[in-house]
Order: sequence, then structure tokens, then C-alpha cells
Amino acid sequence: MPRYKLTLEYDGTGLVGWQRQISGPSVQQTLEEAVIKLAGHAAEVVGAGRTDAGVHASGQIAHVDLDKDLAPDRVRDGMNYWLRGEEGCSPVIVLAAELAEPDFHARFSATGRQYLYRILNRRPAPVLDADRVWWVGKPLDAEAMHAAAQLLLGHHDFTSFRASECQAASPMKTLDRLDVQRFGQEIQIVAAARSFLHHQVRNMVGSLKLVGEGKWKPEKMSQILQARDRSVAGPTSPASGLYLTGVSY
Amino acid sequence: MPRYKLTLEYDGTGLVGWQRQISGPSVQQTLEEAVIKLAGHAAEVVGAGRTDAGVHASGQIAHVDLDKDLAPDRVRDGMNYWLRGEEGCSPVIVLAAELAEPDFHARFSATGRQYLYRILNRRPAPVLDADRVWWVGKPLDAEAMHAAAQLLLGHHDFTSFRASECQAASPMKTLDRLDVQRFGQEIQIVAAARSFLHHQVRNMVGSLKLVGEGKWKPEKMSQILQARDRSVAGPTSPASGLYLTGVSY
Repeated sequence: MPRYKLTLEYDGTGLVGWQRQISGPSVQQTLEEAVIKLAGHAAEVVGAGRTDAGVHASGQIAHVDLDKDLAPDRVRDGMNYWLRGEEGCSPVIVLAAELAEPDFHARFSATGRQYLYRILNRRPAPVLDADRVWWVGKPLDAEAMHAAAQLLLGHHDFTSFRASECQAASPMKTLDRLDVQRFGQEIQIVAAARSFLHHQVRNMVGSLKLVGEGKWKPEKMSQILQARDRSVAGPTSPASGLYLTGVSY
Repeated sequence: MPRYKLTLEYDGTGLVGWQRQISGPSVQQTLEEAVIKLAGHAAEVVGAGRTDAGVHASGQIAHVDLDKDLAPDRVRDGMNYWLRGEEGCSPVIVLAAELAEPDFHARFSATGRQYLYRILNRRPAPVLDADRVWWVGKPLDAEAMHAAAQLLLGHHDFTSFRASECQAASPMKTLDRLDVQRFGQEIQIVAAARSFLHHQVRNMVGSLKLVGEGKWKPEKMSQILQARDRSVAGPTSPASGLYLTGVSY
């Protein structure tokens, strides 16, 4: 009963997120339906990060146990054949499949998660990048945002950036990286940590945007952390700009 | 009666191309309907390049004459308000509007056109870039493609790369630039000329792909040019990978 490690790309736009839900198609359900068609049996597909509705991935990691001993490339191609179906398109695709150790666990073995958040900072609305970015029409100061972001690095109680639905046992997290950089009209925010609280990246970005607009000074980030109160931080930024880009083991 | 120069971005996926057609919505029609709502009168929107169905633009140029003397930024914002409509989304957006000289003509004043063609060269199908690239699953040799592309530069009879529907008076064109470069799994082809024949970029890319696969030697490009016969060149590459990125005046 071999275990496979899958690297996944998906467009979160029309999906309810990673986890199975009654309200619509999830990444997990989409993958598990392809597994049944490929392997002839049901199997749980376990993801490293339970991304929310609308959140994308270019490097999500999952594992699945199959009854048959298939070559990894056949797992990748076979999954993609069933994912794409007759219409030849799918919001989820397997970028790579590898044989994993029996004790490899996509979620619990992970030692780091990397996210990218894309802001399109221009007055006209996005067209080619619709559903791929957060559109912010007013000019943002990316350098001020980066300075503010640096105040969030390290081991802190991130209660102020935690969604009320968050199921983590503790609000203590260690933020390793939060870089803000402008590339023309686009601002990219790269975040890395062992793990994140629910909505943590989107809540941090929502506050950084207020710094970028000049409404808040960068130093406000330290006050927000100390307050341990979600209501003092900025609003949650949209899912459309967020990408799970990689998971470390 | 001021003339405005418009810089346009559009997602060609659901559009029949630049020109008005009975078969579906065109870029021109979409813009002209917004002009009526903004200015209260009909006016022709003239584009620099008549892009085909499915072809995108990040820097198409057009001109339009309005009865009212509106500030250029109001033309941009007003057009975008009507383009986006109640649903708040549109496949066409005005990136910039400027006052133009009365004799400025988006098409006839143009001295150069630049295109980008994107190939996603990986075995799994595109998801985040679906409808934005040409998906080629087999490995391509971008360096061989670039070498082949250089043989097409200069003043030539491009009949072999010309669509049968092409309305140009002459098949003689001067190709100034055709650069092929790999960026990870993506191959980008940048083309520049004063003007192109109908399907010329897509037909050149279709031939370069066969060089990239190793089916043709780069030198074959010179033979194709000399043959002046569309049937000896490669097939037309898909519209989804092509972007009109800029027009020079």
C-alpha cells in the first residue's frame, strides 16, 4: 500500500477551499474523485495546508495511499487524466507525484509553509489578472509596508491576526519571513512560517495595506500584536490574491 | 471634438477579436457601447491592431473622437465605469487615456507593434494560466528556437507565414525582433515589427515549436521563407498565448 506525495496547483476561484463541504466543490473532493477513477478505491487525500475558498496554490503538498503499486509518473498522469475529464480542463492539477515513506504525513511532517500575496496597485481594474490579485486602486507605499512587516517577525501571540473560527490550540506562532516588494504596478508579499493561524496571512496583509495607504504608521504593527485583539487589526484581505507556493519537510 | 488615445488591456478568451462581428462580443463593440454611455453619442473606436478571437492585449492602442471636452482621466474612469457595469467585471479595461492631436490615427500613425507569445512547457496542463498560454507538454529546446527565429529577421516575403484571409496589399514585411527565452517552465517569444501579416506571429511560433521539439533544424526557417508557400510552414499556434503588448508612434 504505497504512499504518494503529490505537488498540486489549483485555481481557488470556483472552489470552496481545501476541505470537503456541502456548499460546493473542494480541492480535496476533486482529488479524491480522481483517485477513485484511477485506483478503483476510495482514499483520503491529506493536504499540508487547508486553504480557504478562493485561495490558490502553486505548490500545495498532499499525500494519498493507493492499493496498487503505480509508477509515480503514472499516478501524476493518471490523476490529471481524470481531473481534466472530457472537457479537458480542471481547476486542480498534479504537478508531481513521488513515492513517500510510509510515515510521511503531508500536514504533520511539514516544517514550513510559504505563501505569496499579490496586490495589483493601479487605478484601472484587473482584467488579465482578474481573480488572481487583490485590486487596490489607491497608491500604496511598499517600502512602508515592508518596514511594518518586519515588526511582525519572530515568535509572538498572533491573536490580533487570528480568525474567530481558528482551531489552533495556541495563538503563538513564529513568523520567519514577511517581505513586501513592488514590481511595477504589482506588490508581492512573501510570507514563511512553520505554520500559520487561520486567516493570518490575509489579516496581516489587510493591516499592511492600511500602512501602505498612509492611514497607519508602520509602528502600529507592534501595538496590534500587543493588543491581542482581532478588532484592532485591519480587515481580512481577499482570498483572490493568496497563493500557497510551497511546503518544506 | 477632441480625439483621445486609449491604452487598453483585454482578455481575449470570450471575445471574437477586435472587430465587430455578428458571432459574438468584440473588443471594439464593447468599447463603443461604453462610449455611448459615457458621451451620449456613437463614435467609432479605431484600434492599432485588429487582434483575432482569443488574443489578449496588455498595451493595445485605440483612438476615439468625443463631442465633449472631457479631462483624459475622466475618459479613462468613465469608460471603465461603464465597461465594468453592475457586475463589476469586464474583459476590456482602459489603462490610460490621453488627449491626442487631431491627425493622430491609432492604426495609420503606428510605426511599430510588439507582441508577446507565452508557451507553458510542462507535462501537467495549465491551471492558474489556463487561457493565458499555449500548453506544450513535450520538452522544447528554447535555444534552438531562438536560433531559428533569428533567420526570420529582416525584410522578407512572409507569404509562408500568412493566413489565407490576410488583406494586406503586400506580403513583404520587416521583422525587427523575434526573441525566444526560457523562464523556468515558461518560454516567452517577443516579436516586433512595423506591422505584421494576418496570423504571422502565430504561424511563426507554430514553426518554431517544431524546431523546439527537434522535428526541424533551425535552418529550415530559411527554406520556409524562400518557399513562399503557407503549406510548408508549421500549423498556426493557439490564440490563447498571444498578447499585443505595445504600439509605437
